[in-house]
Amino acid sequence: MPSPLPRDPIAQARDQWIAHGWGAEADSMAAITAIMRTASIFLQRADAILKPHGLTFARFEVLALLGFSKRGSLPMNHASQLLQVHATSLTNSVDRLEATGLVRRIPHPTDGRTRLLELSGEGKRVLFNARQDLNEQLFSNSGMPEADARTLFQILSRFRHSQGDFL
Amino acid sequence: MPSPLPRDPIAQARDQWIAHGWGAEADSMAAITAIMRTASIFLQRADAILKPHGLTFARFEVLALLGFSKRGSLPMNHASQLLQVHATSLTNSVDRLEATGLVRRIPHPTDGRTRLLELSGEGKRVLFNARQDLNEQLFSNSGMPEADARTLFQILSRFRHSQGDFL
Repeated sequence: MPSPLPRDPIAQARDQWIAHGWGAEADSMAAITAIMRTASIFLQRADAILKPHGLTFARFEVLALLGFSKRGSLPMNHASQLLQVHATSLTNSVDRLEATGLVRRIPHPTDGRTRLLELSGEGKRVLFNARQDLNEQLFSNSGMPEADARTLFQILSRFRHSQGDFL
Repeated sequence: MPSPLPRDPIAQARDQWIAHGWGAEADSMAAITAIMRTASIFLQRADAILKPHGLTFARFEVLALLGFSKRGSLPMNHASQLLQVHATSLTNSVDRLEATGLVRRIPHPTDGRTRLLELSGEGKRVLFNARQDLNEQLFSNSGMPEADARTLFQILSRFRHSQGDFL
């Protein structure tokens, strides 16, 4: 990206929305567009930090979830539910993680319809290092004041609840 | 996605972060993860609304930007700056829009290093209809109260400013 713009282009779009008679939709348009832009900034930063670990943010989330599970393993369908991604997205992530030896798919002991996803020793090691880097380089240093992060999380929790993410 | 989860999985991850001694990073981790999840919800909703118009949200943004420009045209490099996407992403969007006759690339009258992007008559028609649907189905009905949308936009503006999005 070249030098910063003199004015926020999303604020400009919001002004255009109002000028064209869509004032009732302007705040919502601006908020939604800003969320997408912000997600893209964070995703680029996270992926850059995780690249030396051979991970993307999506694959990191799979490892982190398994790392928190009591047995270091979870059924595929439960993992996809907790990560709130479609089964096909999870399958893609797991294919890559399995190819690099960070996770294993193993038979579920009692449910033949699903398989267990298990963190390998190497997966635990990579997770440990990757999480340390994310904590130090992204989460401790996000560019967002702590009070803003908390308010944001509350607003997004209300929204995600309204969209059926959780009860 | 199956039935809603009994608890917010991002709040659970936040608890895990605190339990493992990363309390200083927990709020930031939760906010960033929630932003990515929320962006994904909105992107899916926007893309579903735009599909009947043959558009994605990224391609809609290109049309909307051109629609607001005084001459209905903009240099490619300026468009990529205002949309805050890399030149290659814009090229992909424009390739698709040009293939369906919604925009044209035309020579820049004075600058041989860039080309102008111009909205076609069909592009204007599609933009008009697509924007109407987005306003009615997404922006008027986002699931986020107006006060939340405004606070969110302010927080994200501060953050985007800190990341060099605009001066």
